[in-house]
Amino acid sequence: MTRFIGVETLARIVHDIGIEPFLTGLAGYIEQDFARWASFDKVPRHASHSDVGVIELMPIADDERFAFKYVNGHPGNGRAGLLTVAAFGVLSDVATGYPRLVAEMTLLTALRTAATSALVARRLARPDSRVMAMIGLGAQSEFQALAFRALLGIDRLRAYDVDPAATAKFMRNMTAQGFTVTAADTAQDAVLGADIITTATADKRNATILSANMVGAGVHLNAIGGDCPGKTELQREILLRAEVFVELEEQTRIEGELQQMPADFPVTEIWQVIAGLAPGRTGDAQVTLFDSVGFALEDFAALRYLDDRAAELADVPDIDLIAAPDNPQDLFGLLQSYRQDVRSQAA
Amino acid sequence: MTRFIGVETLARIVHDIGIEPFLTGLAGYIEQDFARWASFDKVPRHASHSDVGVIELMPIADDERFAFKYVNGHPGNGRAGLLTVAAFGVLSDVATGYPRLVAEMTLLTALRTAATSALVARRLARPDSRVMAMIGLGAQSEFQALAFRALLGIDRLRAYDVDPAATAKFMRNMTAQGFTVTAADTAQDAVLGADIITTATADKRNATILSANMVGAGVHLNAIGGDCPGKTELQREILLRAEVFVELEEQTRIEGELQQMPADFPVTEIWQVIAGLAPGRTGDAQVTLFDSVGFALEDFAALRYLDDRAAELADVPDIDLIAAPDNPQDLFGLLQSYRQDVRSQAA
Repeated sequence: MTRFIGVETLARIVHDIGIEPFLTGLAGYIEQDFARWASFDKVPRHASHSDVGVIELMPIADDERFAFKYVNGHPGNGRAGLLTVAAFGVLSDVATGYPRLVAEMTLLTALRTAATSALVARRLARPDSRVMAMIGLGAQSEFQALAFRALLGIDRLRAYDVDPAATAKFMRNMTAQGFTVTAADTAQDAVLGADIITTATADKRNATILSANMVGAGVHLNAIGGDCPGKTELQREILLRAEVFVELEEQTRIEGELQQMPADFPVTEIWQVIAGLAPGRTGDAQVTLFDSVGFALEDFAALRYLDDRAAELADVPDIDLIAAPDNPQDLFGLLQSYRQDVRSQAA
Repeated sequence: MTRFIGVETLARIVHDIGIEPFLTGLAGYIEQDFARWASFDKVPRHASHSDVGVIELMPIADDERFAFKYVNGHPGNGRAGLLTVAAFGVLSDVATGYPRLVAEMTLLTALRTAATSALVARRLARPDSRVMAMIGLGAQSEFQALAFRALLGIDRLRAYDVDPAATAKFMRNMTAQGFTVTAADTAQDAVLGADIITTATADKRNATILSANMVGAGVHLNAIGGDCPGKTELQREILLRAEVFVELEEQTRIEGELQQMPADFPVTEIWQVIAGLAPGRTGDAQVTLFDSVGFALEDFAALRYLDDRAAELADVPDIDLIAAPDNPQDLFGLLQSYRQDVRSQAA
């Protein structure tokens, strides 16, 4: 049987563990996997484009596990009350080729993105960081805030969104979680006094959410919104001033803020910092930028973490996704064993 | 919610409809999709190889639906009582990117392979064909026989396998289904007087299951066993004598019996015959060969067929694979709504 973690089961696991301990544990798995970067077979995603969106399959494997994430991107879905980005994933055993886990990954992706942002910030933000500005208060924002509190102790937020309804939702959700949140009237206002700036807007175009004059010395930028071709959030001058860190360089040059820069613009892959092969922040005045687009390794780690947690719980459901004939040569016999008349006779 | 058709539900649907009507209906969908060949976005499969096997993702799409099949190939799995080839699949809406169906595809692949073999044979075998020889009586064999009876009225079988246990299983299963089956002592014996020869052996190497002197004039060969690099069943001379039909030429040249032949060896893609653009059999003495390796379009058609049949039934289960927040901007609110204490207060 194959383990199935749907939305409800995932939510139960997260609440059983507690969302912040869950994020901390998840960040540990992602760090482990970044630290063994060379163990992974990293391949291009498969993308199926249509006029209204894209469906992608993102596979990745090491010697023990194969994983893929299915994820769509349909900007117009909101009009139908659907998610613009929804996802699910599968984790398999390389030794047998059998899937061991099928899981929802819409929530899980928000969790792994937040855990990744925070574990990276733990290496790049100033250790005395206390205040985070958040620009863009959509579906990712609360997860980001919780991960930064869990991993860095950040509990003071300055929040801004163009949409007052999004701001109200964020204020309500985060105040209930014990954060000190200040709603800002502009992005410029939000970043005042912030040690860390997280940008997570959903605009599907090249926008300037943040300009260079808004970024003070010593700030760490966590840019998660610019994540596909033609979508960026930061003024080009910010990249020129900052030390830039990425997940997978070749992918970020196409999808990230980096698409604004020439092909030889220098960046550091974050796994090198995690593995101790490259420095993170080197001075208090430095501006650091994590140009995050999301990478299959983070999904792999998230599925691995979820699978391990599920193994510790008694009541995670199974689904009969893979046939289990008594005799592998007799698939037909398996099919026949489900016949109602045969089963009645046997009873 | 996403429809889920596991092994048990698939078996129930097949038995509700009846296996032969199911195969006939399935063949109709596959024919429809072959006939509109140009509507499909056909892309290479993604393969993740390890020392012990391979895991593949096979995507395909038209304007309305996206589908992929996950399938492994692990020759050593039998030792652990597992299937060497197991599969599942997903069918999605291109308009939203949402998955609409997750289905087991181990049984479904056996069914679609048999339906494809039979619908092709209906165009290539002599119309007066009555007797089929079957060499290789593994997991595919019964499905093949039932599809040939459903679509061509074949009810006399001459059966051979190197493994007496496989032969005994096949005799038992097929006699119970009302076939007249003769067990043969050799492959040579099995093909005597046969109008159609189906080869479906599992040998993972270049073997000669059938040599040219065993193939009489007018015979149709349905070769489904040679389906990956380094695995063939037919003597090269048979291909030289036969008119050869394939699914997707570029794929069959790598995976099929065709890998024995030079790159310019002439073949006809079967969709051209189905669409009326190329002739099938042109004379009673002709030897025709369907060099079948399995193609993503057949899986697409099978998922589409299954989804349509499931829509007509009341009790096909759903799974909560995709999050459905009231407000797409409030994923965190969705997660919180599952908190036990919150739910208790609401109750």
